[in-house]
Amino acid sequence: MLNGTFTVGYQGVPGAYSYLAMNQYFAGCEIEPRHFTSFDDVAEAVRQGSIQYGVLPIENSSTGGITTVYDLIRHNHINIVGEKIVKVEHCLLVYPGAVLEDIKEVYSHPQGLAQCHEFFKAHPEMKECPYTNTAKAAQLVAEKKDRSLAAIAGAQAAEPYGLEVLMRGIQSNKSNYTRFVIISRQAEIPPEANKITLVVSLPHKPGSLYHVLSHFEQNGINMTNIESRPIPGRPWEYFFHMDITGHLNDEAVQDALAGLKQEDARYKLLGNYVADDTARE
Amino acid sequence: MLNGTFTVGYQGVPGAYSYLAMNQYFAGCEIEPRHFTSFDDVAEAVRQGSIQYGVLPIENSSTGGITTVYDLIRHNHINIVGEKIVKVEHCLLVYPGAVLEDIKEVYSHPQGLAQCHEFFKAHPEMKECPYTNTAKAAQLVAEKKDRSLAAIAGAQAAEPYGLEVLMRGIQSNKSNYTRFVIISRQAEIPPEANKITLVVSLPHKPGSLYHVLSHFEQNGINMTNIESRPIPGRPWEYFFHMDITGHLNDEAVQDALAGLKQEDARYKLLGNYVADDTARE
Repeated sequence: MLNGTFTVGYQGVPGAYSYLAMNQYFAGCEIEPRHFTSFDDVAEAVRQGSIQYGVLPIENSSTGGITTVYDLIRHNHINIVGEKIVKVEHCLLVYPGAVLEDIKEVYSHPQGLAQCHEFFKAHPEMKECPYTNTAKAAQLVAEKKDRSLAAIAGAQAAEPYGLEVLMRGIQSNKSNYTRFVIISRQAEIPPEANKITLVVSLPHKPGSLYHVLSHFEQNGINMTNIESRPIPGRPWEYFFHMDITGHLNDEAVQDALAGLKQEDARYKLLGNYVADDTARE
Repeated sequence: MLNGTFTVGYQGVPGAYSYLAMNQYFAGCEIEPRHFTSFDDVAEAVRQGSIQYGVLPIENSSTGGITTVYDLIRHNHINIVGEKIVKVEHCLLVYPGAVLEDIKEVYSHPQGLAQCHEFFKAHPEMKECPYTNTAKAAQLVAEKKDRSLAAIAGAQAAEPYGLEVLMRGIQSNKSNYTRFVIISRQAEIPPEANKITLVVSLPHKPGSLYHVLSHFEQNGINMTNIESRPIPGRPWEYFFHMDITGHLNDEAVQDALAGLKQEDARYKLLGNYVADDTARE
């Protein structure tokens, strides 16, 4: 879908789930990946224009929306230009030649370890060792060249560090997805864009959300996601993250957005892009 | 507000933020705390009746709603009977007598380390050491009895392990709150209950959320929180977590809930309890 060579930033190191999302989204493109230590650094690099695109996680199917990422996009006045949904499938990665009986210590992010609760119940002989993140755990195992060590990470972390996938899908929850957004300084709205992400703040009175939704309803617009968030410093006032279907050029979308203004709702458009219709099992 | 001695379960170890929420909620009561390694284990113990109450985090102001906890409550048919909002305020905890210049290694959960990004920028001489969780990091420093080590954890982790708070509020985001719910096998609805938590699933057609909200609007009921979540195994269908104001004995609440049935919406009541009106700054 895209042509040319792009510099693309993500948080983490090669083999992280963000890295997988980046490679899947930009499959078939020439990209120059840049890794950053924090979400803030990715957003800042996009804002300054030192990279063309950034890839950040915005929603996880088991832990919910990632508010800090919404805030970074909003505060830096950057745009969502695409999305990619990635399945979180943890694997046991080992130094080449190691077998299950060799493994004594397993490194991963504490959340990665916790997500493989059942696996550790079945293998009490293995010690759970917390580490910075899943991909760095893979890097550690590769550097130590020790067959008694393993990492829990995505399969995509095997190749960059020369490890082998000994077991696949060892997480307890078999249906865990993370949704990533692709961000850019420049707004990019292709003709086939069919999803709009908005942040809406409402006057604090009963029924205000209902009145806002009436404009979507009257214009036949579907809302695919909504999440309310408290406004820092203004207790009990909320704003909303919303995804609706449509293109900004659609008359129905324009009428609905005009309707929001009538309700004293303020909104900021974060992006209008092509939905990733990866079926979540 | 409660009398007697209760067994109360939480996830983590003494000094965790869940432990703080438990102590704050049950202040003035005799409680017998029990710690568990996972959210699932807390919910299971409540369901079986081996503990009377459980304390679980359900929403964080920077990362959003914790879907797995909503799911645990729903699937185990247990009830929310209260809530407690706790400020996440990370401190630098040290072995007694240590000063800032002594510190070489700082242990915490990777998220705790990341949340103190600015602190580490100002102290490049300190090594960030990932650990299982914040309270266990405090336990480690206490066990090692080494003045060159520190932990990042809440102030509540100092006392149980005999550590000192060397610096307070070192997290970059000064306004980070976690909302905990108190769960019980038995429904408990005091007369002063003023908040209701529901899970609502809607027929998949445009405008169905709007029609559901119309019943709250018509009955003058305020919605203080809403979050949509995909339904696993049914791609692109959503259910909603909602908090509304009121008591189940209110006629307005009863009328609104009857209205949901008219819209083919199914709902499950998770609890009706007293809102924690801690002002979030």
